[in-house]
Amino acid sequence: MFEIPDIYTLTSGTSEGTSKLGAFDNAILNAGVGNTNLIKLSSILPPRASFRNRIVYPRGVLVPIAYGSISSDVKGETIAASVAIAISADDGFGVIMEYSGITSAEKAEKTARKMAEDAMKHRNVKIKELKSLSSEHIVVNFGCAFAAVPMWYLNLL
Amino acid sequence: MFEIPDIYTLTSGTSEGTSKLGAFDNAILNAGVGNTNLIKLSSILPPRASFRNRIVYPRGVLVPIAYGSISSDVKGETIAASVAIAISADDGFGVIMEYSGITSAEKAEKTARKMAEDAMKHRNVKIKELKSLSSEHIVVNFGCAFAAVPMWYLNLL
Amino acid sequence: MFEIPDIYTLTSGTSEGTSKLGAFDNAILNAGVGNTNLIKLSSILPPRASFRNRIVYPRGVLVPIAYGSISSDVKGETIAASVAIAISADDGFGVIMEYSGITSAEKAEKTARKMAEDAMKHRNVKIKELKSLSSEHIVVNFGCAFAAVPMWYLNLL
Repeated sequence: MFEIPDIYTLTSGTSEGTSKLGAFDNAILNAGVGNTNLIKLSSILPPRASFRNRIVYPRGVLVPIAYGSISSDVKGETIAASVAIAISADDGFGVIMEYSGITSAEKAEKTARKMAEDAMKHRNVKIKELKSLSSEHIVVNFGCAFAAVPMWYLNLL
Repeated sequence: MFEIPDIYTLTSGTSEGTSKLGAFDNAILNAGVGNTNLIKLSSILPPRASFRNRIVYPRGVLVPIAYGSISSDVKGETIAASVAIAISADDGFGVIMEYSGITSAEKAEKTARKMAEDAMKHRNVKIKELKSLSSEHIVVNFGCAFAAVPMWYLNLL
Repeated sequence: MFEIPDIYTLTSGTSEGTSKLGAFDNAILNAGVGNTNLIKLSSILPPRASFRNRIVYPRGVLVPIAYGSISSDVKGETIAASVAIAISADDGFGVIMEYSGITSAEKAEKTARKMAEDAMKHRNVKIKELKSLSSEHIVVNFGCAFAAVPMWYLNLL
């Protein structure tokens, strides 16, 4: 089985690159998760997971992560990505929402926060805390904006 | 390593939401997997996996799952998602196919079943059983149709 | 946790099918990973992972894999997929890049190799070796080109 992650952080990054995938690679490096293997989750913060300001991953590990990302090759375009976590007052269970688009960081983050709030409302779960993060980038050649909730295991730190 | 799942079920759900991702979140809640982290598989039923009518997952766990899904913001549009599993007579090995589109549940399910049959024919494996499930939704604002084969581990029930 | 894969290979495949997903299924069968559950990674070769000419997977296992893939239903279209790994001189850490498009295998592979080189340059890591593989297919009805770096665990062989 896959063990349940017990720690998490929020991170974001932006970058140019020499291709769309290259820009993504540079943005995730910039966000501190670029030397790992990202396994994209759809997207719950496990109960009792504890927040860390930063998680340093060994290179090559398989990282459970929720993220929003946008890559673009339209010069001058403003792109943004955001994640938001609505966290329950009870046991720290949370819903993570991602949003990215041709928009500002501020608008992307507002959208992600609203989505996370709606998700908790729909579950009838009271929100204790709403965490969010966003990034914004103006494309030069190939650009990427990335925002994420990477998770990990306390016993592997 | 990732252990091989030994139980599975079929489930589906539909929902409206306040965004496309919100509709997806509500649809997977409706399908009983919305408080977990979905890890999308491409898509084999492991030999000797046994079918359960329902699997109740602890919140926040990482769930190996094959699924089809469609979200839409086109009002009045009929959307559908389906999964089908063609299961071998020998050892229960199966191929899972997903189909979703702007179509009816009936047509989506027929398509997924045909795809699963074709996959077994291509492997020269005789089919003992063909399981399938579908869902259909008419979009009001933001809608989602979802159908899935979630897997799990007997020793974690 | 997810253990770090310690072996890897390169593989590719192409195929026709009776649908786009069917063509994908046949192409991954052709590549030797079609009876497993692919878990898509974003995409680092772990340090000290060792290369194998071929990895034979038990059916139904969950396989960590980096891949590029393209499916098409445009008759006569030439499609290609490629993967490239730039491997460090130090400890075998590598960056995997994927590229696929309406192009030739040669061009796809050249692009993926350039992307992998750029990724290592950006990390200031000296490249010892650049491995790559590609596949090309001319679509009849539904076609797929696939190229991958599947990983695995020595103790499970």
